[in-house]
Amino acid sequence: MSAAPITGGERAAEWVRRQLQYEPADVTLFEQALTHRSAARANNERLEFLGDAVLNLIVAQYLYAHYPEADEGALSRLRAVVVSGDSLARLAGPLELGPALALGAGELKTGGERRESILADALEAVCGALYLEAGFETARRVFLRLLAPALEAMDAAAAEAPDGQKDAKTRLQEWLQGRGLPLPNYTVVLVEGESHAQTFHVSCAVPALNSNAQGVGLSRRRAEQSAAQQLLAQLAP
Amino acid sequence: MSAAPITGGERAAEWVRRQLQYEPADVTLFEQALTHRSAARANNERLEFLGDAVLNLIVAQYLYAHYPEADEGALSRLRAVVVSGDSLARLAGPLELGPALALGAGELKTGGERRESILADALEAVCGALYLEAGFETARRVFLRLLAPALEAMDAAAAEAPDGQKDAKTRLQEWLQGRGLPLPNYTVVLVEGESHAQTFHVSCAVPALNSNAQGVGLSRRRAEQSAAQQLLAQLAP
Repeated sequence: MSAAPITGGERAAEWVRRQLQYEPADVTLFEQALTHRSAARANNERLEFLGDAVLNLIVAQYLYAHYPEADEGALSRLRAVVVSGDSLARLAGPLELGPALALGAGELKTGGERRESILADALEAVCGALYLEAGFETARRVFLRLLAPALEAMDAAAAEAPDGQKDAKTRLQEWLQGRGLPLPNYTVVLVEGESHAQTFHVSCAVPALNSNAQGVGLSRRRAEQSAAQQLLAQLAP
Repeated sequence: MSAAPITGGERAAEWVRRQLQYEPADVTLFEQALTHRSAARANNERLEFLGDAVLNLIVAQYLYAHYPEADEGALSRLRAVVVSGDSLARLAGPLELGPALALGAGELKTGGERRESILADALEAVCGALYLEAGFETARRVFLRLLAPALEAMDAAAAEAPDGQKDAKTRLQEWLQGRGLPLPNYTVVLVEGESHAQTFHVSCAVPALNSNAQGVGLSRRRAEQSAAQQLLAQLAP
């Protein structure tokens, strides 16, 4: 007895269920979102155009709400970081997006399933498909979860160097020195994830004030900045 | 007895009611959307950032649905036309947006309420405010109505010269000649609107086939192309 072959549609549906935690109604739509132009005429290029606009709005609203002091220019720069091909492609690894793609023979031979632009475009196309099928609010909810590592990295980087300001560690140090207090202690309390995509949790403590805060980041340095930012928010709100 | 002075908030609320046919809950939000940076620190720049993303998605979805044959590049080019400052500013006139704006003294003196970029930015900011308050679907419904003249102009222009194809009038003429039939008659049946923003309705008739269709456009030429496109769709679907 041999198993029936797995179709592209079944593979796409399985990936959507597992990674988006969403039950696709129109499997063909998601199959198309996961199909590179090298594989078929019904490929993901048009869905990518749509999904790019959906992602841009999701991130714009996140930034609008989370950065009340940022002006238009700063908001644009922050968004460019989050939705860059580089940033989106980094999300593709944990989502096992590469193996879910339909690629032409040439692209398969040259490792297309690991190419940054192919991964980023497919992720946008998936966002477009989800929007078409389930509407904006569902696409927003699912992609805010998928984008969380990218948004968190951006938040940490922004804490490090807000527009025209000193970074958070420097500001905390100056605040403490101005009060004759010793420097804070930074300690890595947890490192999560595989080696290519680790997340660092850092504690920043000022024993003299019996204060501490934690920060998370995709590098130790960023986690420290995030922790300093949190502590500053406590000490000098 | 003297009337109480009209506040910026009341003026903004009145404009929103009349032009968006929407009852604002948070009047301050719409007042801010209608405030240029020359007038106040609480101005529309951040809302414009958000509204730009909302408009981009509304138009992206319209194009995705209405241009099933257009590739990503063509969709991007079409969107750029619709959401250009020039195109948005043209919508501002009929909406009486200029007089609803709060501008600083300097901008008022130099006719800022007629400046293209100021009008386009304010329209985007209004879209952002509506999105924040009422959600994506309401913003989409309202702005598809406001954008209708721009979308219609684009549809007519696209009918005139679809990617790499001959324009609709030429295609219709060739289709008729190939069947030994006489050329169609184009007749302007209606001209609407004030002189600076007229809309033309043109009929395209082929008496030999007892067929005719109407097209609408912001110029006579575009309305003719649109009519030819409609007739072609009937004759050679």
